[in-house]
Amino acid sequence: MRQPMISLALLGLLAATTGQAQTASPAGRIETAAKLRDAALADNKAWALLSDLTDTVGPRLAASEAEARGRVWAKTALQKLGFVNIREEAFPMTAWERGTASASIVGSNHALAITALGTSGATPKGGLTAPVSCFDNLAAMRAAPVSEVKGRIVFIDHRMTITQDGSSYGVNGGVRRIGPALAAQKGAAAVMIRSLATDYHRNPHTGSTGFPAGVTPIPAVALALPDAELLARRCAAGPVTVQLISTPVSKPGQSANVSAEIPGTVPGEIVVLGGHLDSWDLGHGVFDDGAGVAITMAAAAAIKSHVDRTGQAPRRTIRIVLWGAEEFGVIGGRAYAAAHAAENIVLAGESDAGADRIYNVGSRVAETGLPLFGEIGALLAPLGVQPDSSNKSGGGADVGPLAALGAGVLDLGQDMTRYFDVHHTPDDTLDKVDRKQLDQNVAAWTAAIWLAATDDRPLRTK
Amino acid sequence: MRQPMISLALLGLLAATTGQAQTASPAGRIETAAKLRDAALADNKAWALLSDLTDTVGPRLAASEAEARGRVWAKTALQKLGFVNIREEAFPMTAWERGTASASIVGSNHALAITALGTSGATPKGGLTAPVSCFDNLAAMRAAPVSEVKGRIVFIDHRMTITQDGSSYGVNGGVRRIGPALAAQKGAAAVMIRSLATDYHRNPHTGSTGFPAGVTPIPAVALALPDAELLARRCAAGPVTVQLISTPVSKPGQSANVSAEIPGTVPGEIVVLGGHLDSWDLGHGVFDDGAGVAITMAAAAAIKSHVDRTGQAPRRTIRIVLWGAEEFGVIGGRAYAAAHAAENIVLAGESDAGADRIYNVGSRVAETGLPLFGEIGALLAPLGVQPDSSNKSGGGADVGPLAALGAGVLDLGQDMTRYFDVHHTPDDTLDKVDRKQLDQNVAAWTAAIWLAATDDRPLRTK
Repeated sequence: MRQPMISLALLGLLAATTGQAQTASPAGRIETAAKLRDAALADNKAWALLSDLTDTVGPRLAASEAEARGRVWAKTALQKLGFVNIREEAFPMTAWERGTASASIVGSNHALAITALGTSGATPKGGLTAPVSCFDNLAAMRAAPVSEVKGRIVFIDHRMTITQDGSSYGVNGGVRRIGPALAAQKGAAAVMIRSLATDYHRNPHTGSTGFPAGVTPIPAVALALPDAELLARRCAAGPVTVQLISTPVSKPGQSANVSAEIPGTVPGEIVVLGGHLDSWDLGHGVFDDGAGVAITMAAAAAIKSHVDRTGQAPRRTIRIVLWGAEEFGVIGGRAYAAAHAAENIVLAGESDAGADRIYNVGSRVAETGLPLFGEIGALLAPLGVQPDSSNKSGGGADVGPLAALGAGVLDLGQDMTRYFDVHHTPDDTLDKVDRKQLDQNVAAWTAAIWLAATDDRPLRTK
Repeated sequence: MRQPMISLALLGLLAATTGQAQTASPAGRIETAAKLRDAALADNKAWALLSDLTDTVGPRLAASEAEARGRVWAKTALQKLGFVNIREEAFPMTAWERGTASASIVGSNHALAITALGTSGATPKGGLTAPVSCFDNLAAMRAAPVSEVKGRIVFIDHRMTITQDGSSYGVNGGVRRIGPALAAQKGAAAVMIRSLATDYHRNPHTGSTGFPAGVTPIPAVALALPDAELLARRCAAGPVTVQLISTPVSKPGQSANVSAEIPGTVPGEIVVLGGHLDSWDLGHGVFDDGAGVAITMAAAAAIKSHVDRTGQAPRRTIRIVLWGAEEFGVIGGRAYAAAHAAENIVLAGESDAGADRIYNVGSRVAETGLPLFGEIGALLAPLGVQPDSSNKSGGGADVGPLAALGAGVLDLGQDMTRYFDVHHTPDDTLDKVDRKQLDQNVAAWTAAIWLAATDDRPLRTK
C-alpha cells in the first residue's frame, strides 16, 4: 500500500489537530517502517544529540556529579523531542573515584601507561614497590603456587583479539573481572593486566573488576598494550621490580535511570529501547555509550515525529530507558528490572556497542514472536543487516535483567571490529564516529521498534 | 663479476689474518654492494639494536641522565660491533625538563590532553585561568590585533596533513616553532596549539618552540587532535575559559655526540652516516630516532663485517655519528659541524624519519658526484626505491650544518605517511615498527654507503 506523502501528512495534521491518536493501521505498518527507515538514513539527529551530550556534559562516571548532569541533559532533550512520562528513578551504589595512578620499572627510565580498574583498592601512601610475577594469561596465574603470587605485583599479559561481534571480550574478560580477586586471594600486593583491548596506543583501557565479600580490594590497574609488551619483554630478560601508585577511593553514592515514553493506544504492553548514560571518566563516553543514548533517542524521536505528523500511534507503548551505572556491573539495569518487574515489558533492546553499523539482527522471544523478526529482517536487509536466527541473543547488558524476568529481546548487532580500540580509554571521543554508520544505526532501530510496537503477537518468553 | 662465496671468505680470512687491509676493487664494488644489500635484507641486526636501546635505556631527553646512558649504550654497542676511533664529544646546552601539564575547560567536565612544548615557560604557581582566543591557523593569529591576544590563552587550530615525504611538517611547522613567540610578543598569557600531527589519539605531540632574545618564554602546549577539535567546537559555541598548569624548568646542561669509524685505505676522505641519540621524553624514542641510530649502525656493521671477512676495505673512511640534542634545534648537529669544519667530509646522510621503508634517493653533490648517484639509484631500484634527481636534497636535520660547509648530501627518503601519527608522542614505541621495512632501510643504507665509500669521484659542493 502506497499513499502519496501529501495525503498522509494531511491526515496526520487532521488527527493531530483533533488530538485523537488512532492505532496505526496493521496493513500499513510495513510500508511505514520502510519509510521511517529511509527517512532516518537522511536525518542526522543522532549526531546532534551525541555531540551535544559529549561536548557539553563530557565524561559521565557513575554516581558522579557529571552523570547527574547527564540526566539533566537527557530529561531536557527528551522533553524537547516531545516524549511524555519523563521519569528519573534513583538507586544507591558505591561511588568509586579513580584518583591518580603511575607506575615505573625500577632502575629504568620507563614510566608505564596505566589506569586503575573500577572498584580496585589503593596502594599504601607513597606507593608500593615489589617484584613482578609475570603470567602469559589468566590460566597460568590461576595455576601458579601461592609462593609466586604472595607479596608480588602480579602481571597478567592475557590477550584478546579482534572479533566483529565483540565475543572476544566475553571470552577473555575474566582476566579483568576476576583476575584481581583471584590474585588477592593468593596474597598478591597488586595486579597489573594487559588492557582488554585491541589497539596499540598508550591509552590504557579501564573497566570494572570485582572482589567478593571477604576479599579486600587490592590495587589493580590495566597497562596500555605497548607497555604490557614492554613489561613482558623485560620479564623475559630477567627479574623486574615495579613501583606502583594508585589512589582510588570508594564511598556511598547514588545513580539513577531516566525514562520517557511514546504512549501506545493499547495500555499495558511496553517496548523498551535505550542505552546507558554513564561512561568511564577517561574519554568522553562517545562509543560507550553516548552513541547508544543518541541512536535510540533519535530512533524514538523519528517515530514520535511520525506519530505527531500522522496521528497514527503504535499499539504498544514505546519507552526509552537511559540506564545509569552500567559500567560498575549493570547496577542501573538491575535496579530498573527490579523496580519494573510487574510491568508487561514485551520486548527490550539496548544499543551499547559503539557507533558503527548494524550488521545483524537477533532475538530471544516466544515462538509466536518469530514472524515479527522475519518482518524486521526483511526491512533491515536493504541496510546490509543479516538475520541471526538462533533466537538466543542477549540484547545488551542492561536488558539482561529484564530478559531474565521474561521480556523478549531485540538485538541489533553492531560491527565491533574497532570497538575495543577505543572502549574505556581516553580515545573514546567524537572524532571516532562515522556519521553514515551512525545514521544506519538509527534507521535500523527506527524500523525495528516501529514494527515491534505496531505488532500484537506475543513476544515474552515467560 | 661473481665469485663463489667460499673463496671470498677465504680471501678475507687470509687478509684479516695478515692484518693488511686492501682497497676494495673498483671493478667489484657494484657487485659487492648488491650482495651486501641482499644480505642486509635477510639480517635483523637493526631490530636487535633498536629493541635493546629503547627497552633498556628508554626515552632519552636531550641533556638528561637518560641521554647520557644512551651514549654509554651506543659506545658499548659500537665497540662490540668492532668499530674503531670511538669518540664522545660534549657540548653545552640549556636543559629543559617538562614538569607536569594539565588543562581543563572551565565550567565543564573536560580535561584536555596537553603536553608542554620544548623551551616553553611555566604558568604561575597554581596555574592560570584566562579566556581563550581561538584562531583557525597561524596566519589568523598573526593578523589579529593585540586586543584579541593580550592577557588571553591563544589557541591556534592550525592543521597539517599527511604527506609521504613529510613536507607538510615543514610547511605547517611555523605554528609550533614561532607561534608561541609571536603570541608572546602580543602579550598572550599562554599558547595552545593543535598538535603538529596526523593521528586522532589522546596523545599530544610535543616538540620544540623558540623565543628570540628579549622575549620571555610563555607557557606553550600542544593539544591532542580530539581535544583541539573539541576546543574549536566549544569556541564556535561561545566564550571559553581554560585553566592551564604547566611547570617546565630550564637550567644549564650538557649533551654530546658519539662517533666511530671504519677506517678507509686513503686517508682524509670521510663519509658520514648516522641518526640522533636523543629523543623526546614522552615515548620510547623508537621512530624518532632510535630507528635511525639502529638502521645506520646496522648498515655500517654489515660493511664492517664484510671488511673483516674479506680484507677489502673502502677507500674512504666510513664514520657513524650519533648526534645528541637534535630535538632542541639541531644543537648536536651544529656543534658537530663546527668542531669538524676542517675535515674533508665528502658525503653525509642522516636517518631520521622513522622506521618505514626507503622510497626515494636524492642527493646534493658536485656534478662530478652525479654518476655515483646513478649507480646508487640502480642498486636501490630492486628495493622499490626511486630516484629524486633534483640534486637539492636535505639529508636530515643534523646533516644540514655539514652540508652548509660543503659536505655532499645523501638523502634516503623514508615513507613518512604514518610518521606524524607517532612522532613526539607517548605512542612512539617498539610495536609500531614493521620489521620488513626496517630491514629494507638497512639494505638501502648499506649499499649506498658502500658505493659512496669505495668511490673516488668528488662529491663536495664547496
